[in-house]
Amino acid sequence: MRKIECQVIGIIHTQFTEKDKTPIQSIYSPDSKGTIELFPEYVEGLKDIEGLSHLVLLYHFHREEAYALQVKPFLDNAEHGVFATRHFKRPNLIGISIVRLDSVRENILKISEVDMLDGTPLLDIKPYVPDFDIRHDCRTGWYQHAGNPNNHQDKAK
Amino acid sequence: MRKIECQVIGIIHTQFTEKDKTPIQSIYSPDSKGTIELFPEYVEGLKDIEGLSHLVLLYHFHREEAYALQVKPFLDNAEHGVFATRHFKRPNLIGISIVRLDSVRENILKISEVDMLDGTPLLDIKPYVPDFDIRHDCRTGWYQHAGNPNNHQDKAK
Repeated sequence: MRKIECQVIGIIHTQFTEKDKTPIQSIYSPDSKGTIELFPEYVEGLKDIEGLSHLVLLYHFHREEAYALQVKPFLDNAEHGVFATRHFKRPNLIGISIVRLDSVRENILKISEVDMLDGTPLLDIKPYVPDFDIRHDCRTGWYQHAGNPNNHQDKAK
Repeated sequence: MRKIECQVIGIIHTQFTEKDKTPIQSIYSPDSKGTIELFPEYVEGLKDIEGLSHLVLLYHFHREEAYALQVKPFLDNAEHGVFATRHFKRPNLIGISIVRLDSVRENILKISEVDMLDGTPLLDIKPYVPDFDIRHDCRTGWYQHAGNPNNHQDKAK
């Protein structure tokens, strides 16, 4: 079986409507605010989520269609394999962002540190758990010599 | 549009064939080894990946079918909303693991710190970049009072 069908479970609303004005990573946009509108049929799945300060969101890069196996990320002038980058032009157009959870009311989650386009289809919400998700002593390949992401104008990750 | 189609891009081979003997998180299985068999048509996407020590894998929980909105994770005796847990019974059966990359040869990546079942369909490989992926000062809700995962017998995350 070479295909898997995913359900959109909600919509992420943000202030970003243009790709080239969208942050390249959520960690570089601490003041950006957004809202998750979880479809009402999933609301029971939010029980106890208010205890978490950070969430991992999986979502669809809905403004992309084609992918490339080699891409030139904004942070570098050389081409790299897409799996060695966070670029959005991937075989499966799935993005990951870590965001801060500010509040929950029924099916609406207010979030900050967002880096996705307005209207992004949501696929999953997972808790960010430092004991599971932090690794130290990492080699990061070409990223070690990459430019300063605070100067970006492009969402190419 | 409420559905998105994903392509399986490879298969993850591991030593784990039984759910109840599979680690609950990759960070707790540092000695477990696995192999990613990327389908050959995607091999160009691996350029420069050898410079990275850690990868984020997205994959399909292929041995699950149904989901639940509230689940009892192994680490606790209470039910929580599935989005407040890393349990596999999610509306979209997509898992995330951070693994260590040991070597790359053509379309075969040898990895360690694996926590997925043998035969797991791969959806994406992304670089783990500490500058993007580490958050401090997190509140983790029910996880703060959860049991010691080293005692687990169950993959319920």
